Formats: sequence, C-alpha cells, structure tokens
Amino acid sequence: MSLNTFGHLFRVTTWGESHGPALGATVDGVPPGVAIDEAQIQQWLDKRKPGQNKFTTQRREPDAVKILSGVFEGRTTGTSVQLMIENTDQRSKDYGDIAQKFRPGHADITYFQKYGLRDYRGGGRSSARETAARVAAGGLARAALAHLAPGIEVQGYMVQMGPKAIDRSRFDRAQIDQNPFWTPDAVAAEDWAAYLDQLRKDGNSVGAVIEVVARGVPAGLGAPVYGKLDTDIAAAMMSINAVKAVEIGDGFASATLTGVENADEIAMGPDGPVYSSNHAGGILGGISTGQEIVCRFAVKPTSSILTPRKTITVAGEETEIVTKGRHDPCVGIRAVPVGEAMMACVILDHLLLHRGQVGDAGGVIG
Amino acid sequence: MSLNTFGHLFRVTTWGESHGPALGATVDGVPPGVAIDEAQIQQWLDKRKPGQNKFTTQRREPDAVKILSGVFEGRTTGTSVQLMIENTDQRSKDYGDIAQKFRPGHADITYFQKYGLRDYRGGGRSSARETAARVAAGGLARAALAHLAPGIEVQGYMVQMGPKAIDRSRFDRAQIDQNPFWTPDAVAAEDWAAYLDQLRKDGNSVGAVIEVVARGVPAGLGAPVYGKLDTDIAAAMMSINAVKAVEIGDGFASATLTGVENADEIAMGPDGPVYSSNHAGGILGGISTGQEIVCRFAVKPTSSILTPRKTITVAGEETEIVTKGRHDPCVGIRAVPVGEAMMACVILDHLLLHRGQVGDAGGVIG
Amino acid sequence: MSLNTFGHLFRVTTWGESHGPALGATVDGVPPGVAIDEAQIQQWLDKRKPGQNKFTTQRREPDAVKILSGVFEGRTTGTSVQLMIENTDQRSKDYGDIAQKFRPGHADITYFQKYGLRDYRGGGRSSARETAARVAAGGLARAALAHLAPGIEVQGYMVQMGPKAIDRSRFDRAQIDQNPFWTPDAVAAEDWAAYLDQLRKDGNSVGAVIEVVARGVPAGLGAPVYGKLDTDIAAAMMSINAVKAVEIGDGFASATLTGVENADEIAMGPDGPVYSSNHAGGILGGISTGQEIVCRFAVKPTSSILTPRKTITVAGEETEIVTKGRHDPCVGIRAVPVGEAMMACVILDHLLLHRGQVGDAGGVIG
Amino acid sequence: MSLNTFGHLFRVTTWGESHGPALGATVDGVPPGVAIDEAQIQQWLDKRKPGQNKFTTQRREPDAVKILSGVFEGRTTGTSVQLMIENTDQRSKDYGDIAQKFRPGHADITYFQKYGLRDYRGGGRSSARETAARVAAGGLARAALAHLAPGIEVQGYMVQMGPKAIDRSRFDRAQIDQNPFWTPDAVAAEDWAAYLDQLRKDGNSVGAVIEVVARGVPAGLGAPVYGKLDTDIAAAMMSINAVKAVEIGDGFASATLTGVENADEIAMGPDGPVYSSNHAGGILGGISTGQEIVCRFAVKPTSSILTPRKTITVAGEETEIVTKGRHDPCVGIRAVPVGEAMMACVILDHLLLHRGQVGDAGGVIG
Repeated sequence: MSLNTFGHLFRVTTWGESHGPALGATVDGVPPGVAIDEAQIQQWLDKRKPGQNKFTTQRREPDAVKILSGVFEGRTTGTSVQLMIENTDQRSKDYGDIAQKFRPGHADITYFQKYGLRDYRGGGRSSARETAARVAAGGLARAALAHLAPGIEVQGYMVQMGPKAIDRSRFDRAQIDQNPFWTPDAVAAEDWAAYLDQLRKDGNSVGAVIEVVARGVPAGLGAPVYGKLDTDIAAAMMSINAVKAVEIGDGFASATLTGVENADEIAMGPDGPVYSSNHAGGILGGISTGQEIVCRFAVKPTSSILTPRKTITVAGEETEIVTKGRHDPCVGIRAVPVGEAMMACVILDHLLLHRGQVGDAGGVIG
Repeated sequence: MSLNTFGHLFRVTTWGESHGPALGATVDGVPPGVAIDEAQIQQWLDKRKPGQNKFTTQRREPDAVKILSGVFEGRTTGTSVQLMIENTDQRSKDYGDIAQKFRPGHADITYFQKYGLRDYRGGGRSSARETAARVAAGGLARAALAHLAPGIEVQGYMVQMGPKAIDRSRFDRAQIDQNPFWTPDAVAAEDWAAYLDQLRKDGNSVGAVIEVVARGVPAGLGAPVYGKLDTDIAAAMMSINAVKAVEIGDGFASATLTGVENADEIAMGPDGPVYSSNHAGGILGGISTGQEIVCRFAVKPTSSILTPRKTITVAGEETEIVTKGRHDPCVGIRAVPVGEAMMACVILDHLLLHRGQVGDAGGVIG
Repeated sequence: MSLNTFGHLFRVTTWGESHGPALGATVDGVPPGVAIDEAQIQQWLDKRKPGQNKFTTQRREPDAVKILSGVFEGRTTGTSVQLMIENTDQRSKDYGDIAQKFRPGHADITYFQKYGLRDYRGGGRSSARETAARVAAGGLARAALAHLAPGIEVQGYMVQMGPKAIDRSRFDRAQIDQNPFWTPDAVAAEDWAAYLDQLRKDGNSVGAVIEVVARGVPAGLGAPVYGKLDTDIAAAMMSINAVKAVEIGDGFASATLTGVENADEIAMGPDGPVYSSNHAGGILGGISTGQEIVCRFAVKPTSSILTPRKTITVAGEETEIVTKGRHDPCVGIRAVPVGEAMMACVILDHLLLHRGQVGDAGGVIG
Repeated sequence: MSLNTFGHLFRVTTWGESHGPALGATVDGVPPGVAIDEAQIQQWLDKRKPGQNKFTTQRREPDAVKILSGVFEGRTTGTSVQLMIENTDQRSKDYGDIAQKFRPGHADITYFQKYGLRDYRGGGRSSARETAARVAAGGLARAALAHLAPGIEVQGYMVQMGPKAIDRSRFDRAQIDQNPFWTPDAVAAEDWAAYLDQLRKDGNSVGAVIEVVARGVPAGLGAPVYGKLDTDIAAAMMSINAVKAVEIGDGFASATLTGVENADEIAMGPDGPVYSSNHAGGILGGISTGQEIVCRFAVKPTSSILTPRKTITVAGEETEIVTKGRHDPCVGIRAVPVGEAMMACVILDHLLLHRGQVGDAGGVIG
C-alpha cells in the first residue's frame, strides 16, 4: 500500500476532497467480463450516504456514482475503471474559524505540518468523505467476487457504541438492516438511539466498534509473510478515518488464552476440515482457513464537536474552538459500509493474487 | 506491502525457513553514508536470540549476522544490503508426526492448502524464526535513523501476559532490560515468572500484549490515505507471527470515549504545539503529531504444545497431536524486539518517503 | 510500473477510452505547494490536440482539462490530483466493420484474445487517445520541476519521417515550433509535408523517429539497478502507442564503436566535470551525468489505413479490412508532446526518489 | 520496477558487489511445486561464467549457485527463494588508481556524485558481475515456465559485433552453441574472432547487438498500458549494464515503413490466427500475439580499456587513466545469457499476472 493506492493486483487509487468538485476511485486490475452497472454500485453508496437520519451528518449528497471508463456494454473490459462522485452540497459558508484554528483530535494540524498548507474546506482530503470512493470501489469488488467466486458474502455491523456493547445472545443477522446502526441486537439499537440523541444534543460525539465478517472465502487466500490476509485487512481497516484499532478473531482476547484454550481443533467433515471453534478468525499464518473471517475495528469519536476545546491557531496563538458545520455524532455508523468495502476489496485482491502465483496447485486434504 | 517485502522506499524482503541453511533480509533503499557494522546489528539479534533462559525455546542459535553487500569501509553505499543469518541448530530428528498432521491453531494446514506442499521442518517459512531477519533489518533501520534524525528512540516492552496486565503505576522504564520479559513492572515480572513456569511444566502456553513506543519522531510523517503511519504500523505488527490485534494510542478504548474526552487539547509551547494528552497515540489523520507514537499488539499463545489436541492428517484421518520439539511457552517475549524492529523500519521508511515527496515544504506553527 | 500506473513516487494512473465519456490521469505523490492551474496544463494538451492541421486526425476534440482534486487556491496540496478530459466528438457512427474484424498491426486482436471482449469504438483503451492523459500529467510534472529544480527543460522534436531523416547540420531549435512536425530542420519540414500529403491521399501512413532531450538535469538522478534513469525512460517511451524502439545517447550506433571512440573524456570546468562528448546521452550506470539527456524512439506507421489488408473476423473467417474513420497518417507527429510528457514525469519521479533515498549525501568533485 | 527489484508478481531483487563476499537474487512470487535444483540453474550460470576463453575477462569465478531458501525436497514451496553466488577470485590488488580516478564512459563518476561514496573495487555494484544474479533468477524462471507452460523457449544470440553484422541468409540456429560469440552465423564467428583478438591486443574494446527471441509464448500476455509486454522487455534489457538501445520486431526500421508495408496480415490456420509476417515482433498493443517475440539490444564497448583516456580525479584534478584489471573486450558476449534470463523472467511474470487478473477469460477466435 502506498500513498493513495491500496491493493496488490486489484488496485484502488482514490482522489478528491470534501468540498472539491468531485471525488472518486481509479480502479486497476479489474478482471474482465464482470457484469456491472452504476445501480449495482449505487446500492452500497446509498448505505453510506449522509443525511439519511438524525444520527448522521445533515449534509445532503446524492452520492451518485458515474462509471467513466473500463466498462463496455455492461461488462468490465479489464482496463482501468473510473468511478466518479460529484459533490453537490458544499456550502459556500465561512470557514474562517477552521481555516485558522486546528481542531483537537483532527488531522487539521498534521496536514498543515506535513504539507505546509491544507484544504480546510470540510477537512479537505482528510475528510471521511473520501470513504465514499472506497464504497464505490467495494461495490465493484463485490461484483467481481460474485463473478469469480460466487458465494462469498461480506457483512458489517456495529457491536459497540461508546461503552455499550451488544449482547451476543441477542445476535440476529436479520436485524442488521432494520435499524440506523446496522446492529444485530435490536435492544441495543433502541438503547443507542436514546444515548446518541442525548450526546448529539449535548454537542458531543462518541466512538464505536464495528465487526466485519466474510463468509464463503475458500481456504488458501493470503500471501505470507507481508501480504498476509490479516496484514492486509489490518491495513485496510486502519486506513479508514478515525480507526484506532483492529483485531482478527479473538484479537486482544487471545492474549489472555492458553494454547490449550486457543487451539481450534480440527475434525474431518464431508467437504474437508471442520473446526471446533474459530478463535483464529478464519486466518492461520496469514492464510484463510475456509472458516468465517472475522475482523473488528474501533472508531474514535468525531473530533468536530460543538463543545469548546482548547487549541491554537496557525500563528501559534492559544484559543478555543467550536466546530459548527454538519457532523456525525458517531462516525462509526457510516464506517460499517466502509469496512465492508475494504474487506471485499482485500478478499478480491487476494483471490487474484492467489490465482496468479499459485493457480490450482493448492493441496486437498483427504 | 506485497508477499515477502515490506516498506515503500526502505524495502525489506525476507527469505529463509526455520531449518534451511540460512535466512536473511535483502534491504533496498538504504540511505548512503550510514555507519554500520555487524556488531551494531548483532546487539538487537542477541535480544531476540533463542535459548537465553527457560522461558524461550531451547534451540541454540547464535544468530550471527553477516553483511554480504551494500556496505563498504563501514558505511552503507546506497545499494541493496544483504543480511544473512546461518542456521546451525536444525536437529535432524524425525518430523514424521508433524509432517503428516496439522497442529491446531498453526499455519501447517493453510500452507498445505495454499501451496500443495509445505516445508514441515520446524514450520518452514511459517516459523517465527523468520522474525530474526526482521530484527536484523530493524538494526539497520535504527542506524539509518540515528544518521538522519538523531534522537528518535524506539522501545518495546510487555504489558500483559495471559490475563495478567502490568500495573501502570509501577511503570519504570529502567526495569525493562532487567527481566526476561522486557517489562517495566518489576512486580509483574516476578509474578509472570512463576505463572509461565507452571504453564511450561503443564505443557501449555499463553498469549501476551506488547507495547512499542517511538519517541522523538518529528511531526509530519505518514502518507494519507493508504500509506498512513498508523496503517503501516498496523500492517507491520499484524504481519508478525501469532499477532491477532493492533491498536494505536487508546485503541479499542477510544471507542468508549466521547469526543469531549478524546480531544487532545493543544497549547503553544516554546518549540511548537504541546498536547494535554495523547489519546491519539501520536498520530492524527495518519500523520505523526510529534508526540510519542504508541502501539500495542496482542500475540496469541503458541500452538505447539505438549497437551494433546484433536486434529487430522494430510490424508484426512482424524487423530491427536502432541508437539514435542523446542517451543516458546510465550512467544510474546521474543516478539518484543521484533515489534521494535518493525516500528524502526516503518518510521525510517516514512522519513524517506516524506523527504522524497515533501522535502522541507512542511508548515511551521507560530 | 504496473498495469495502468507508471512511476515510483510520482505515480500516474491513467484511465479512459477513446469513445467513453471522459479520460484522465490520477496523479499521486505530487509535491505540495506547486503553483498550477488548468491553463498551464492546457498549453501542453493543445500541442497534442487532434485536428489542428491536415496531417493529424480530423477528430475535433477541445481536450479541455479539468483539475478535480489535489489543488487548493492555486497550489498543489500534496494529495492525489485528478486531471479529467471529457470526450466530445465521439461519432455515433457504425463501427460494425471494426467490431467484427481485426486491423492488421493493431491491438484489436490481442485485446480480444487477452480479455475476451474489447471496446471496439475507436480502439477503446488501446487508442492513442490515452496519451492525452499522459500529456496532462506531464504538464503537472513540468510545473513541479519548475518549482523544485528550476532550469530543467524538456523538449521533443521529430528527426525522421519514414526513410527521410533530418540533416543535423541544419538543426535549428528555433524552428521546432514553426512547423507541424515539430522538427528543427526547416527543409525537412517542407519535404515531409509533400511526402505525407501524398501518403495520406494514397490511403497510407508512415513511421517516424522522435528525439526528446532534457537539459539542466543535475548529476545523480537514477536508481540502479532496476530503476535506472535510462531503464525508466525506455519503459516510459516504449509504453507509448506504436513505439517499437528506444535508444539513449548513441544507442544502436554505440554497438559499432570501440571503447576508445566511445569514451566521453572528462575535464574539470569551473562548475564541475566537463565532458568532451556525449555518446552516453547523459546517463552512466543508470545515473544522470549532468549532461543533456538524449533519447530517441521509433513510432511505427498507423495500422488504420484506407488501403485494404487481409485479415480475419472474430468468428475466424478470412476477409479484408479498410479502416475509414479519422486517423493520423503519421502518429509520430503527435507522439512528440507525449514523449516530452513522459520524460518530464520520469525526471520528476527520479528527483523525488533521489531526494527521498539520498537527500544531499551526493559527492562533490573538486 | 524500483531500485533493486524487477517484476510485478515474479519479483527479483538482486544484491551484491563485484568484490564483496557474495552476490545473489532474492526471488519472490515463485509458483509452488516447480522442480528445481542447483544444477539446473548452474547450467545457465556456466554459460555466462567469466574466463571461459580469451574473449572474456580472465577473472576465474566458478559462479556456483546455492539455493538457500524456498525449495524443499526438490520443489519450490511458494515462498521466497534465495540464490547466492560466492565471490572467490577478488584479487586483493591495489585499486588506488581507480579509487581516485573516474573511468570515462563508466558509472564511477555518477555513483560518486549520487551516493557520495562508492565501492571502487571492481566497480562495486555497478559491475556487470551483478548480472550473474539475473542469470540465476532466469534459470528459476525457465524452470517455472517449463512447469506452467511447457513449450516456451527463450534463446539469445549475437547478431552484430562493432560494425560487423551477421548475414541473415547464413542464420543457422544449430551454430549458436558452437562458437564463443553465441552467433548463428559461423562465418561471422570466425571473422569476429580475428577482429576481437586484434582489438584486445590493441587495448581496446567494442560494442555489439544481441537478439533474444521467445518462442511458444501464448497470445494474451502483457498488461496495457504501463505493464505492456514490450514496455517490460525494454526496461529489463535497458537495465543490463552497458545497454544503450532496445527494439522490438522491426524496431527502428519500422519508422521507415508505410502502413501498407508494416501490416502483418492475418489469415486463419487450424490452430488460430496465422500472420503473413512479424514486423510487430510478436507484440501488438503491448500484448503477445502468439508469434515469436523478437527483441534486440545494443551493448556499448567496455569503458575499462588499456588505452589511456583523459579524465579527472575525485579532487577535481585533470589526469589520464588506463584500466589494467581483467576486463571483457566485448561485454556483449556475456550479455547473451543475461538477455535470455531477463526475457524468461518477464514472460513468466506476465504469465502469472495474466493468470491473476484474467484467468481463462481470454477470447478464442473462430
């Protein structure tokens, strides 16, 4: 991964700022012959789209994607695909306050220190608006996966908001699309709604934990030792705005286990190995086992809040800042489709890498 | 990052297996003029070397590094550096059991499923022995950092073994080199010694959490949005054997915070911005703030244990496995210098990247 | 270089087809603070623009570039820059003939064999229209060079059309912009005009040789042994449509020389080494010497001609083909600004690479 | 391609200097299951080995290759392969003259200007000795090709020495292995022997042209637009020491042709398209046609000659230099196996890339 590109063979380069004319993803290494149209990609963008309820920013963006290249007569041609989303709701308001002050906990200050200048309009390139491009690329990745390896399913959902985690005994996959938090726990959804509403009114924000799983991934994907599947998932998730932690399978909890407890014992089923448990989160030695791939990541609270915080100006004067604008009280909500997109891209990338280096040389047990 | 290489400009490619004749690191993009010799690198390898006490594997390897290229008259020439470590204590014992059976929780099965064959001697390429090459490369990275940006310091230490975390109130940096666990908490060190000794006698193993910090890193390093400093740290740590989780700054705990709590407020000091706290772990928007960079990662327990576990053979027959060999009861111990090495490499890489793309264009506050 | 991206640090990814809605270049690794606007880039696109005289295709494209990202208040921000050119003159005529038949000497057949489908409208991705995106990226590279290393000048010109080479004794740099062939030999320009006009009327086409020089490049650029300056120039030029050969300095003629003849002897001037000659074309061991960098490349004749040629259809039937459309009788003409753009990109890329790996560690003679 | 690595998926990183303890190639992305041993690789190294006759350097190096990793029980495991060649005949003579003076036409001066220091012993990293590592990697690439796509054959030979080109009417492939110049023209071989002997006695050297062909390459390899097959071949050949020019098919001669002449007309044969000619050298639009791939490159004369040439010292003093040492009077001879190795690597790389991105989606005609 380098600068604005991620992926080895399926390479996604994103571009664009929060308040520029447009943003998008230039996607290279796309397999040819994949059936795709704008509507297919749009469904995933709609999931991430701002302004859908009171728990996300009130900026109104249709986030309509246009395919500008790489697709002919409804199929990918194998050449680079350009996915563009035009910005339409960039308010021409006064950014004076943010232009001179740095928001604590925000990339304002580091972009300035790094580049000597920054596009302060809505956060410029550091804005989470960049993730729209990822979701578009993820939609293309999903279509390619459906073409090459039908049966792979990627799904994300929220498992914690602030200190409030879901109750795993209430986990109901059918609930995920039924609430604004993409959570499988309907009781938590209600609790969070009240909690977040209050935080929003208080001019505050809160963090969250998202879980993303991939089902149906065949055994054998991942390229040790620096292109491991978990390495690339970790990088992909950590590259999302506001993410501060990533774990695979039992993650940090695996540090508390003994070797006896942590062993996912193996039996032989009709279609190959069957595991007694999935502490590993579907990855051993950086290679998929065929089990469900399980990843979680933590999103910190938005730094753009209405409560005043101490900060300094570009000139070095001490002051306070209040961020008015239109901001998400819990950016974790919209991080769900972003995490899904990253997972879809990583899995497709490794499917192509594996096909390239290994082909059908893999071993069959039994 | 791809396959066996990591880094953008400072590129480290490792090679070698646990029981092959040698292993090493081919290091490209090394700045010229760096004073280096084998002794400098050796000190870090000695820190990771097996067989130093009863808490690590009893394999006896001197892990003596040889510099085969890229250095002339005590200085790097700017060409690729080859760092080779010969294996000397590969026992020619019978690997029959492991050759046919897969250790639960180990990469045995996925390497076979991926590649159609595997080097079962000591785990082959999937062995943590590969990390010796990383430590060697890290030693070179430290020398280059000392040359280009004196004052940067990278240090790792263990903060948790199994369920037993250190007490931060006892944190004493001077203790770190005084115990076999590289822990800053002398009381924990004693407690862990007894705990791990019992686990070892029981034929069991345990996980751990390691913290790595980098001090003195200037503001401005990191290349958004896919070469973010935290993205690359996450990938670097997750690529280490047995690592299942990575976090930066407050990490998963940041999910529990509100925006008001999480804000690292900024004041103006004599040398630039001063932060009231470091929830961010020294990275905002993927770019270093100039604060201490703080990373933690979790290592799962070794899967090679003396307690029998259920598994299958290559032929698909169900059986049990007991791993005799010589194994670490807590691989987290030797992961400390490995984590340090990865951090040093990532920071050097970003120093070079920044110098290349940005040079001295960065902004000065005040 | 990989797929649709070229460059190491200054990375240009192009996208778009001849008859799609738009094409462009996603440019990553751009140094921050470079003054740039659309007009600056447009001047180079205007040089390549079709339909300017009877010697180039009659397709009328304004080739107006839009900067969609990475520039704020007239300066680059260090983030990815999107340069988009909308297609406006894609005729909705019948492509039936080309859709089913393969033009001999054209990529029609190999794109089909590779990808299983192709965008036959105007050649799709294989069209030289892609080079507009290169010229746009080259304009940005020139601006960055002017910012970082003022005094570097890149210039291309045609030195041969078909069998007719220029007379070097008439070489007059001032003539280059005075004729439609960008040639420094005014006599050749007149001769070629008549020659090409006849070929065009005959429904034929012809090849050409272009020379591109870079003046003012400092000594020390180029990264041995696989990122040599000449290696990257060769790749850059060979990647241009219809190019079949590349040479540096004396090129193929150097094979005919003895070591005594080929030696560019070195004396000491007031500002450093002075060479008696430049057989090397300004590059030794893959690193610039400080002399003029000289590169030549050969462009084959357009395969899209009005004279019937034998071919086959997708179904494998033997037939003949005549390509009507609007085509350049000598694509070499418009390859001049493309070659310049590639040279500018390569030099900027190596300036950044050198700054990143080496900084100011280079040696000074005397 | 970057710095010391070439290739996209089959990635070769070379290391080592002329007079260091060893040199080698770290090869990543090797397909698993390829039968390989040291003897197979050695046969190609023996072809390049110095000191075999009076027309090459008298340095005596066995160039014995050792496989240090990535191979188990006679087959590649899919992990990184280390190929090491120890240097044995580095004479500990006085290099004082070369240490202070720069050879005209040699990389001495540019390495110093770039890196601020250089390993002057035998040219250090800039020595053609580095190409031994390429030949070793090429041997591995040939074995992988034989495994994955039997029938692909790569062969190089010399077609010109100084001004003396072969007579194509005498082209006899059986002659290639019968003379010290690897030329298919037995008459030229005799002529060149006398010519080169005289040049050697005169303390002079001479350039050459090598042709490398690949037969049996399937249609469809090559990744437009910056990973074109010819782009990568051009880069690979231009990266070889002393190479100044590369051409594909008719190369520079194609500039002299009209479109009517240049068209390789297509008919339908029993196994697919049949071409009337091969002006294109087997590549259209950067993708292989299935015809023979034909590449030529020019090698300049060795700059290390016994005839005195004017130069300067590191201190900037004007002087003369005579290079005693042991040098090839025509480095083109040993460039033959190097060119073959590069071609084998590029084709394997593109076979893997194609398999990864496209798989079996390619189109079949008829």
